Amino acid sequence: MSKRIGLIGSGSWATALAKILTDNNHHINWWIRNSDTIRHMQSRHHNKHYLTSVYFDTKLLSLSSELSAVVEASDVIILAVPSAFLEMVLGLLPPGALEHKKVVSAIKGLVPSTNTLINEYLNKELKVDFSNYFTITGPCHAEEVANEKLSYLTFSGTDLNETQAIADLFSSSYLQTIVNTDIVGVQLAAVLKNIYALGAGIAHGQEYGDNFLSVYITNCFREMQHFLEKYEEVAAIKAGTEPNTHNYSASAYLGDLLVTCYSLHSRNRTFGNMIGKGYSVKAAQLELNMIAEGYYASKSVFMMNKTIGAYMPVAQAVFAILWEQVHPSEAFLALEKGFI
Amino acid sequence: MSKRIGLIGSGSWATALAKILTDNNHHINWWIRNSDTIRHMQSRHHNKHYLTSVYFDTKLLSLSSELSAVVEASDVIILAVPSAFLEMVLGLLPPGALEHKKVVSAIKGLVPSTNTLINEYLNKELKVDFSNYFTITGPCHAEEVANEKLSYLTFSGTDLNETQAIADLFSSSYLQTIVNTDIVGVQLAAVLKNIYALGAGIAHGQEYGDNFLSVYITNCFREMQHFLEKYEEVAAIKAGTEPNTHNYSASAYLGDLLVTCYSLHSRNRTFGNMIGKGYSVKAAQLELNMIAEGYYASKSVFMMNKTIGAYMPVAQAVFAILWEQVHPSEAFLALEKGFI
Repeated sequence: MSKRIGLIGSGSWATALAKILTDNNHHINWWIRNSDTIRHMQSRHHNKHYLTSVYFDTKLLSLSSELSAVVEASDVIILAVPSAFLEMVLGLLPPGALEHKKVVSAIKGLVPSTNTLINEYLNKELKVDFSNYFTITGPCHAEEVANEKLSYLTFSGTDLNETQAIADLFSSSYLQTIVNTDIVGVQLAAVLKNIYALGAGIAHGQEYGDNFLSVYITNCFREMQHFLEKYEEVAAIKAGTEPNTHNYSASAYLGDLLVTCYSLHSRNRTFGNMIGKGYSVKAAQLELNMIAEGYYASKSVFMMNKTIGAYMPVAQAVFAILWEQVHPSEAFLALEKGFI
Repeated sequence: MSKRIGLIGSGSWATALAKILTDNNHHINWWIRNSDTIRHMQSRHHNKHYLTSVYFDTKLLSLSSELSAVVEASDVIILAVPSAFLEMVLGLLPPGALEHKKVVSAIKGLVPSTNTLINEYLNKELKVDFSNYFTITGPCHAEEVANEKLSYLTFSGTDLNETQAIADLFSSSYLQTIVNTDIVGVQLAAVLKNIYALGAGIAHGQEYGDNFLSVYITNCFREMQHFLEKYEEVAAIKAGTEPNTHNYSASAYLGDLLVTCYSLHSRNRTFGNMIGKGYSVKAAQLELNMIAEGYYASKSVFMMNKTIGAYMPVAQAVFAILWEQVHPSEAFLALEKGFI
């Protein structure tokens, strides 16, 4: 399939996706905000900030800091910016710029100002039809893609054939693709897992061991299922339909939760680790020079859950630690008793 | 509850259980096969071979290499020997010695010669009533118990009150107990997880990364559920009842799988890692000076599954690598394609 591909973002995940696509010999129109990063990429063939070991064949790249131009030149737009920047970035576009594009979200988060799913936001604010929306979900740390370690990505969309066509752009010897129509479930799982990984980091910072961590993650997994079931119940009542179900024992759910909680590559885990060791949120942000998705996700899910009403002691504890100055040891002591 | 407790075995798990019990001030009659280990424990207050940092108050220990005497002096018998040695050890007892005892199995395996669950074996061979049988399952690495890191143990038995009474012997500041009546499910999960952990080690030895490992474990978890569902179907047809169900998102299932697959303390993972790097089974056994439970479990489950008929590509691959000289890279290449 020949498609004009646009990539929005230049962090580590965007860079990994660019590697996957160019390794498959696809040309990409790549929006990189910083002109200096563009110049560096053009002369040195790599992203100076992320996955610096990845060499790019610049003949396959049209680099630009003009977002409108990149979008206009592309049929398939891949969004790979942190969720916290999404509204700011999309605000650079004229209204309707995405209207007839296929939009592929590689964002693991909700829209912070509205606590909504990306597809709902894109539909409402930018007229992206639900049928033109796709998601890419993990478990997939960018660092391992850079090293061409075999990884799995799940692609979700309303139509399986169209989704398969998007997935085929990425499929390669080191990248296995899985395709389904479970758009809402995988997005929510991707959001929740960042909260739980941040909590896993806190537990590690608090010097809990491997035995506890495995129990913690098990209980997070059950909580994730419970939240999704309640979410679907509420959605089904609104729509007057039967609730959707999800295959939780698939890599977009359990796998993504595991890699994010266990891997030392995980930014959410690293961030949480500092919080668990007693750093303030501000100090951890400054020290790590990045914002963990789980930080925003914990607030968005907390707000979202006001209408869902799921019992989420772990997500609630992470929220209380990050946003309400509850001490990690106090919050985790309360959790310990309820785990099974 | 005052009970005369007997402990059979002196490996790392038996030693951890002895620590938990004596920390709770319970006296134990402890069968240790090797008289030299007994003498060392009496004079130096620790097990010279396992968890050497754990200090024992010898006033709480009656050490003996006479199994019959230990059993006779005890009401509650805790079995904590490798499954491969179980028949040999129990063969030392006069028939009926366990008949009116409460038997608590801390063994994570099946009886190798018959491929049966421990309770079925004990019932048939040693007249242990099913109502007198209890299991202790993880997730719980002995090394972390030695360090008093908060851990969770699941106790299962036919009667919840009696099971709680057994659990209470172990419950402490660093040991949280969970109680249920799911005796068969937790035993099978404990057996399967060793096979999967051995496979995780093989994957690591084959240089698969964190992304793959998370997908691998997710697929193992689904396979575990599938096997148990098929097992219960078969059992239900035999018994003319409805199949039992299990709470897989509990620590005795998913948690135990996770800690065994991920922790560097895991012997099965270590053993598998050597196999994955190209060592023969014999060489790995000699090098590590131990037998991984998963090695025997892979054969027992393979045999057991002849009547269950579950689709188990992962367990089958591990069996083929260990027992049929299939090369790890070949077996894993076949697995890769089927994972979701």
